[in-house]
Amino acid sequence: MPEKILVSAAGKSLAHRPIVTLTTDFGLNDHFVGTIKGVILDIVPGVEIVDICHSVQAFDVLDGALTIAQAYSYFPNGTVHLVVVDPGVGTARRPIIVTSERHHFVAPDNGVLSLVYAREERLHVRHVTAEHYYLQPVSNTFHGRDIFAPIGAYLAKGVDAEKFGEEITDFVRFNAPKPKPVDGNTIRAVILKVDRFGNLVTNVTPQDVPALFQPQPPPFKILIGKREITELHTNYAQGVPGSIFGILGSMGYLEIAANRGSAAQLLGTGKGTEVSLVIEGAAAASNGK
Amino acid sequence: MPEKILVSAAGKSLAHRPIVTLTTDFGLNDHFVGTIKGVILDIVPGVEIVDICHSVQAFDVLDGALTIAQAYSYFPNGTVHLVVVDPGVGTARRPIIVTSERHHFVAPDNGVLSLVYAREERLHVRHVTAEHYYLQPVSNTFHGRDIFAPIGAYLAKGVDAEKFGEEITDFVRFNAPKPKPVDGNTIRAVILKVDRFGNLVTNVTPQDVPALFQPQPPPFKILIGKREITELHTNYAQGVPGSIFGILGSMGYLEIAANRGSAAQLLGTGKGTEVSLVIEGAAAASNGK
Amino acid sequence: MPEKILVSAAGKSLAHRPIVTLTTDFGLNDHFVGTIKGVILDIVPGVEIVDICHSVQAFDVLDGALTIAQAYSYFPNGTVHLVVVDPGVGTARRPIIVTSERHHFVAPDNGVLSLVYAREERLHVRHVTAEHYYLQPVSNTFHGRDIFAPIGAYLAKGVDAEKFGEEITDFVRFNAPKPKPVDGNTIRAVILKVDRFGNLVTNVTPQDVPALFQPQPPPFKILIGKREITELHTNYAQGVPGSIFGILGSMGYLEIAANRGSAAQLLGTGKGTEVSLVIEGAAAASNGK
Repeated sequence: MPEKILVSAAGKSLAHRPIVTLTTDFGLNDHFVGTIKGVILDIVPGVEIVDICHSVQAFDVLDGALTIAQAYSYFPNGTVHLVVVDPGVGTARRPIIVTSERHHFVAPDNGVLSLVYAREERLHVRHVTAEHYYLQPVSNTFHGRDIFAPIGAYLAKGVDAEKFGEEITDFVRFNAPKPKPVDGNTIRAVILKVDRFGNLVTNVTPQDVPALFQPQPPPFKILIGKREITELHTNYAQGVPGSIFGILGSMGYLEIAANRGSAAQLLGTGKGTEVSLVIEGAAAASNGK
Repeated sequence: MPEKILVSAAGKSLAHRPIVTLTTDFGLNDHFVGTIKGVILDIVPGVEIVDICHSVQAFDVLDGALTIAQAYSYFPNGTVHLVVVDPGVGTARRPIIVTSERHHFVAPDNGVLSLVYAREERLHVRHVTAEHYYLQPVSNTFHGRDIFAPIGAYLAKGVDAEKFGEEITDFVRFNAPKPKPVDGNTIRAVILKVDRFGNLVTNVTPQDVPALFQPQPPPFKILIGKREITELHTNYAQGVPGSIFGILGSMGYLEIAANRGSAAQLLGTGKGTEVSLVIEGAAAASNGK
Repeated sequence: MPEKILVSAAGKSLAHRPIVTLTTDFGLNDHFVGTIKGVILDIVPGVEIVDICHSVQAFDVLDGALTIAQAYSYFPNGTVHLVVVDPGVGTARRPIIVTSERHHFVAPDNGVLSLVYAREERLHVRHVTAEHYYLQPVSNTFHGRDIFAPIGAYLAKGVDAEKFGEEITDFVRFNAPKPKPVDGNTIRAVILKVDRFGNLVTNVTPQDVPALFQPQPPPFKILIGKREITELHTNYAQGVPGSIFGILGSMGYLEIAANRGSAAQLLGTGKGTEVSLVIEGAAAASNGK
């Protein structure tokens, strides 16, 4: 990914600047993110640094995995994605580089890239051991600055991934929690996250309950707390303001939403809450996806 | 707005990169904003993406209108402003491109550009129908990613606005709430927003009460809740810490502020609160602005 | 800092774009930051604007000083750092340019650069009086937009610092609060800030208590509220989840932290809280650092 110059017929040059994205749980109230940007810019001048999200819930590797999985594929070929949600900073957990067909990912080896692994077919995962790329001295408490930022910057500068360390196959990965069939008509699911609008994002995908997302779905009930939801909408603005309904959201999951309101607030629920889905007369799909 | 290269006498090239700004209610806790940036960068490499604000109050079209109206004019000629506050996402509301003498705006046709319409003399508003520019498949729930980001990116890349659709004149616009004269001495106003410092921004402009902003204003009272404010300052640091006063703020509106404190907190009030302004012996201006 | 072009042997040009960083207490809920970016981009097209932090506590000059001090040195040579925490906006406090060996800083002369002064040996401080660089008309309420942004932008564009005003030596500086020895064994310290993870950052550095940070420290107690902390860890993940300990953080200060939890929440304390440090049998260092 060195900077490439395309000279058009008109003699204009169009610099394709390398891109480094940032997904972290560092928040925006401290110097952490700014410091990381300084380190990257000092190594690869002209780089484009793009914030994906810095408000991943603190220490929450699954939340980080969901966030990067939703965004990475929209970026241009050659983008380097830094994903630093790192409750084990300073311990023996390994820094890794993951190379897919189109992108690089730099992260601690704690499973934060698990949903990337699930979506990409060809991947090379390397354990970074080339410590001469690190910012010296390396602290025990801020590897985002001292280890991950320099790795990402040198990748963006064009250093080959192989230069950083050997390929490994025993990297850490987990499966996102999947809905569980309770009986032929019922599956038990969970709220994975609450988005900015208060939409409750479940872990139910169309593959889990194909019948529900047919043009003419059978009668169904979504049970959450003491509430029974029986409507499925195709956009957030359907129904009367304040009404609560199910919807297939842009993340690819069934969401529980409210028209111009926060379903989380209206239902008094949040992340981790159990949800049951009862589809009358239609068997839920098996859990094997 | 294709990338232009100015070659100076010294042989140095100075790339004028196209600029796309973002004003949304997507917040910063999710992948939404990062995803939009990926879409834009993939279409127009080298673009400069600038966050104006992502914390417009959820679904609040007036808040979005106030935010973009305060910022857009400071940007260079040719800037493309994306304004996505879109409670009607997935419904029939139209995507539009608004072209002023210096800028492009891309937004849903729900009035979020109303204050731009009020400030710009020559405007062309187009209903975007050229769906081949959209990201396919278009979801029902995230038009920021699938529709507005690609439109903005192709505009920034140099595609002519006319290519996106026909000009329309029946676009949606609203008037920001204006202060109402109650009698010759009194006008009733409202708090439009509370800023980061707790300043209460009213909808009163100097045109509404010219007498108040004269060098020697007549006696006056600002009534909010049970509080009576009788001082007008010219900067936030006047008076003793904690004192509450009126001030003409940088947004062009009368604000109620506190010296090194939050007027909103001290008064226990916020957005939507009524304010009365009594100017003794001086008639308030008529409402026609 | 005009834009420099390095032409490599391969004929590729690598534009070194000027960099302006932003550290403010403007928050992210309003148009303030976006407006400042527009002003800068209009003056110096192609500039790279980098957010360090906009969530400095409102009006809190010490918090701003801590934030910029942690981040600035990681940026490339020639970076212009804008630091706008300005409770005295509109008063007679001076706008200044501070030039160190590697960077420029633009700020109000209220001490917000005090920790930069403490870390840099050779500094030139100038009182900016060249008002023709300002955005006209200059408001009394938003000097970030009207004064500081244009100064930073013209510096980034290559205007010499001397063009902005005369050098001064009576600039405002304060010392960050230092720990005070109470007796030979005890020093009294204070919580300077709480970071995003709930770590309590004290004002104790290794120079203040060298014995504590030896490989084999003597027995010690950190007293905060009714809690007694007797463990010192080298990374945040040591100990059992929820345990509370001391740690030398990446800011260079002793922190009170919790394994995968918020020490601030667990202890119910925050910024400004007193902390006592008792080191048995080992004299604390004198306060002269």
